[in-house]
Amino acid sequence: MAKNTNIRISLPAVCFVWQIAMIILFGVFIRYDEESDTHWIEHRRKKNISTNLENDFYYRYPSFQDVHVMIFVGFGFLMTFLKRYSFGGVGFNFLIAAFGIQWALLMQGWFHHLDENDWKIKIGVENLINADFCVASCLIAYGACLGKVSPVQLMVLTLFGVTLFAVEEYIILELLHAKDAGGSMVIHTFGAYYGLTISWVLYRPLLSQSRHLQGSVYHSDVFAMIGTLFLWMYWPSFNSAIADHGDGQHRAVINTYLALASSVLTTFAISSISQNNGKLDMVHIQNATLAGGVAMGTASEFMITPYGSLIVGFCSGIVSTFGYLFLTPFMEKTLKIQDTCGIHNLHAMPGVIGGIVGAITAASASESVYGQEGLINTFDFKDAVANRTVNIQGGYQAAGLFVAIAFGLVGGALVGGILKLPIWGDPADANCFDDDVYWEVVVYKHSSIQIMHIIILYCSYI
Amino acid sequence: MAKNTNIRISLPAVCFVWQIAMIILFGVFIRYDEESDTHWIEHRRKKNISTNLENDFYYRYPSFQDVHVMIFVGFGFLMTFLKRYSFGGVGFNFLIAAFGIQWALLMQGWFHHLDENDWKIKIGVENLINADFCVASCLIAYGACLGKVSPVQLMVLTLFGVTLFAVEEYIILELLHAKDAGGSMVIHTFGAYYGLTISWVLYRPLLSQSRHLQGSVYHSDVFAMIGTLFLWMYWPSFNSAIADHGDGQHRAVINTYLALASSVLTTFAISSISQNNGKLDMVHIQNATLAGGVAMGTASEFMITPYGSLIVGFCSGIVSTFGYLFLTPFMEKTLKIQDTCGIHNLHAMPGVIGGIVGAITAASASESVYGQEGLINTFDFKDAVANRTVNIQGGYQAAGLFVAIAFGLVGGALVGGILKLPIWGDPADANCFDDDVYWEVVVYKHSSIQIMHIIILYCSYI
Amino acid sequence: MAKNTNIRISLPAVCFVWQIAMIILFGVFIRYDEESDTHWIEHRRKKNISTNLENDFYYRYPSFQDVHVMIFVGFGFLMTFLKRYSFGGVGFNFLIAAFGIQWALLMQGWFHHLDENDWKIKIGVENLINADFCVASCLIAYGACLGKVSPVQLMVLTLFGVTLFAVEEYIILELLHAKDAGGSMVIHTFGAYYGLTISWVLYRPLLSQSRHLQGSVYHSDVFAMIGTLFLWMYWPSFNSAIADHGDGQHRAVINTYLALASSVLTTFAISSISQNNGKLDMVHIQNATLAGGVAMGTASEFMITPYGSLIVGFCSGIVSTFGYLFLTPFMEKTLKIQDTCGIHNLHAMPGVIGGIVGAITAASASESVYGQEGLINTFDFKDAVANRTVNIQGGYQAAGLFVAIAFGLVGGALVGGILKLPIWGDPADANCFDDDVYWEVVVYKHSSIQIMHIIILYCSYI
Repeated sequence: MAKNTNIRISLPAVCFVWQIAMIILFGVFIRYDEESDTHWIEHRRKKNISTNLENDFYYRYPSFQDVHVMIFVGFGFLMTFLKRYSFGGVGFNFLIAAFGIQWALLMQGWFHHLDENDWKIKIGVENLINADFCVASCLIAYGACLGKVSPVQLMVLTLFGVTLFAVEEYIILELLHAKDAGGSMVIHTFGAYYGLTISWVLYRPLLSQSRHLQGSVYHSDVFAMIGTLFLWMYWPSFNSAIADHGDGQHRAVINTYLALASSVLTTFAISSISQNNGKLDMVHIQNATLAGGVAMGTASEFMITPYGSLIVGFCSGIVSTFGYLFLTPFMEKTLKIQDTCGIHNLHAMPGVIGGIVGAITAASASESVYGQEGLINTFDFKDAVANRTVNIQGGYQAAGLFVAIAFGLVGGALVGGILKLPIWGDPADANCFDDDVYWEVVVYKHSSIQIMHIIILYCSYI
Repeated sequence: MAKNTNIRISLPAVCFVWQIAMIILFGVFIRYDEESDTHWIEHRRKKNISTNLENDFYYRYPSFQDVHVMIFVGFGFLMTFLKRYSFGGVGFNFLIAAFGIQWALLMQGWFHHLDENDWKIKIGVENLINADFCVASCLIAYGACLGKVSPVQLMVLTLFGVTLFAVEEYIILELLHAKDAGGSMVIHTFGAYYGLTISWVLYRPLLSQSRHLQGSVYHSDVFAMIGTLFLWMYWPSFNSAIADHGDGQHRAVINTYLALASSVLTTFAISSISQNNGKLDMVHIQNATLAGGVAMGTASEFMITPYGSLIVGFCSGIVSTFGYLFLTPFMEKTLKIQDTCGIHNLHAMPGVIGGIVGAITAASASESVYGQEGLINTFDFKDAVANRTVNIQGGYQAAGLFVAIAFGLVGGALVGGILKLPIWGDPADANCFDDDVYWEVVVYKHSSIQIMHIIILYCSYI
Repeated sequence: MAKNTNIRISLPAVCFVWQIAMIILFGVFIRYDEESDTHWIEHRRKKNISTNLENDFYYRYPSFQDVHVMIFVGFGFLMTFLKRYSFGGVGFNFLIAAFGIQWALLMQGWFHHLDENDWKIKIGVENLINADFCVASCLIAYGACLGKVSPVQLMVLTLFGVTLFAVEEYIILELLHAKDAGGSMVIHTFGAYYGLTISWVLYRPLLSQSRHLQGSVYHSDVFAMIGTLFLWMYWPSFNSAIADHGDGQHRAVINTYLALASSVLTTFAISSISQNNGKLDMVHIQNATLAGGVAMGTASEFMITPYGSLIVGFCSGIVSTFGYLFLTPFMEKTLKIQDTCGIHNLHAMPGVIGGIVGAITAASASESVYGQEGLINTFDFKDAVANRTVNIQGGYQAAGLFVAIAFGLVGGALVGGILKLPIWGDPADANCFDDDVYWEVVVYKHSSIQIMHIIILYCSYI
């Protein structure tokens, strides 16, 4: 049954209307904060700040740019691995991230940064980082749906995903006062379960009709490695971007660097041991090597120790690769969850590991290790939570993990239901994973003689 | 008519002679400035600077590296989209940028940084950024000529382009005292009209003979997305790299980030609406999504407000995509301007928009918004221009735009005339867009049986 | 004679056992340093440090991330140029770098950063940079062996390479007190001779049986340019990453930027002049353009002057390109050294040039140029070497170069002997340069009719 995949009205309409809505809402709500406003010079004098370098910009900007690269090149190119869906992988990632960051500035602003004097949201570089973080959860969700949804569906997925994210983040970070600098819970766990549930609702029983396109070719695997490596290299910036100034950012970088290195080795080991002749599988190398970064998201700021970080990476690399080997086929066959990129292995399981590691590490923190001031700084035991003990903090961390999972499952079910409506222009089961549906891919009609010419020409270049 | 494309004498001669000239001129004129000299420690003490961090290096180096990536990977890979000109796209971009930055250090140094005590140019990280900026204008011009010129012609284009740039920049920034932190006028408008005029002078009536190579293949489009995304992601660094320390850099980043996000959505919208079935065109996505960054170049430092930035991106994305749809074919057919990369749509029109937006924003600046000190800081109303009003500033901004256009048109006509001389080894109309002319592309002669083997081998990998 | 390339036991065993050993050794030896520990706040107060920005993290983190990109994307993608070894190029680079940085933190820690009070190694961001540097020498060595060794051999190469590096570095930098901020001697010269000697020991007389795979195809050359450009762009960060705060880092960036620009022009010149019709060779452009960065490694911090940097780049570009033209074929034929990537041209010769330039520049340093304090700061003429003169420093620099070469040759011979054992699963001479040996490359068996369909499908996309 052919489906109508014409998006000539719906996609432009969604883009235009929502972008105009963004402009209006930004006009009403968004202003520069005191560090990005021309009044900064007066602010500096008033607060007795000796140098422009104390502007938060100089603490955070290098990390911000790294995170930005992860969002657009990292996630984008990681999704180019399919032989005929590279345009959709990198292109739709670009579209929904560009929309999502705007909506995230608003949603996160309303929940976290609303100035009660004038009801405006004051933004600076930290807001830009948080917007990128928020959008990451939607890009993770996209990974489960890659090749099976229309760009209009992706815009809807992003609209609701960002909204849910902002609420969930508010509950976990503000109400529960859990710590999650690199977002193991808030970003990865939520985003993965959100995407998996959507994919479950949108289950396609005849997807095997597109099986011939659901794989890679040689060069598309190399393109995907661009995504993998930029994610891998910049993950220390991801986990440290909004950590505390000074030792907080410094420690988060070290912990993440080590966890990532460790998960590379266990990924190669499991990938090799699982195949005849020990041949490595590119899918594992492209994905499971990143599991250490995901799993170090919550505890990156903590005194988890360098060898603790190595252990986290060690375990998460193993778990993630086993996921690709056994869980993904099982989930597709038994649970009816079609997970194109294997986000359950790369984000859901390592994210949950990260949440658990965070809870345990928090609960076992002590003044002898952190120092009195260090403990207060690291966990922000101030104001309303000044008297919280580390054990209780550990409990709240665990509670945060459940909130993230719950938001992912319930939110995904709701949004999946919306996306199931037959109005979004999604492809038929036989036309999935094919750029030709939504992109002008030049297709020539050749005569036999022309084909022979092309073959000869082509062979002359091999 | 076959042309002589042998550059075995001319290219090495130009490279050697000009590089030796650079060495001599650097020996005579270029020295380290006080922040990159070993005397910095004494300078610090004398100026009572408390920390090494106040060295401008730490304010600007992260932005510099981002700009550097834009110049070499951004522009370079954006030009790999042609099916058989990827070597020339990224390779000649590399050559002329490497030459241009040296010449720019001299030219800009003579005009802006000549120490009147010893007639030396003192360079630091800001000079490196400015050299990269200067070269960007020549790379833009290259975009119009891509595939149709020899590397020797490109070296000549760069030599004169950098020279013209330095003069034009001096007039606009120093004499007119216009502001143009991200170079909407100085870089984009000038570079685009310079390249377009050259392309007009070098009009090739029989270019259709190369039509079969003037398009992309699937993987070359993915390569071009690497260029697009690194330009897009790092554009906030481009527009903030030489902005004022503190709030100036901070605000330029926010404005550019928002304008770029906005132009992505309108580009997707127009691209989709323009085709049957709403299919997207990779050419639009690769280029018009960047229009917001170009158009925010002049006003990035100003208090244009976040929603103002969104509006600028909104409009420039639309204008740029419409340009690809209607103007490029019109210009080629009617005006005899063959613009390979569509720089008129990506740089000329958004650059002019940027100049106009800058003039309007400057003219409407007020002390109530900027604060008294903020207004003076932002527009540098000091010394000779201490009494300039914002209205007059707006007028000078507009004047700057005309200077940029004039330099582009007149300079392009002159340089185009030089490049028309039949001595530069440019390809015949039938050999354009073909790497085989200037690169050792391995071409095998196969027998029929070998071809069958190659086909079978190749098919086994698909 | 077919060889057993089954690594299903050996590779997982090596990865697991060595990673577990890392965890144990990290548990015993590695701790956070005072700037990445939660006690930083107390440390700040005690040392009267006014701001978090004085944490070394903010001086070095942007450079660290750039170096990290060079190691994983730069070296990785530079090695994707072979038509059927892109997986092995970027994938094994990933594996051994991830292992090597862990082992380097330990080895370099024991030699340079062992706290004598508690026998722990205290790590911060500078250690991470140094670990990346250390691993670079092993990746260079990999370049000589690319396509001819198994991943297990590469792990062994890295284990011993890092060990040798740490000893050699200790002798050169600590005992001889030579300066080598960018590692011309310590990294490039050592790494190159280490790899070349290994390749000499592992000489394959029948390698011509794999000749049909020992070349590039069009797109693999474009992939390799990603590696080239990220190395080229971030080399200023490489040479400045551990330079002195302030003017040291600033000057190292300027010198490296200029040397690199200069070597691009001479590379293009020699490449063009060496071929009929002046056609350029991608191998030269991908590699010799980087020679300026290698050759500027030692002297980058010195007052070599901007034109001095241009001269260094000028010469090293020429030497490197001539190496590809004449030396590589000569070495393969006469000296029985098979150097896949031509590391002798890119790292060995420019590295030696860099060492010599460093020695000469040091010996000719003077107080009139450096200033009294500047001279002491630049060469660290303190404590045990407080009375060293610049002439003597020049001698020690030269001695350092010989130490690096000696370690490369002797170490390479030893490790080559180990790698010659027939237990490592290396490929037969006829199976080199083929990803199919160690990677799951999807190979379909097609019928003739299917092949015709594939051809027609494929041609429709060209």
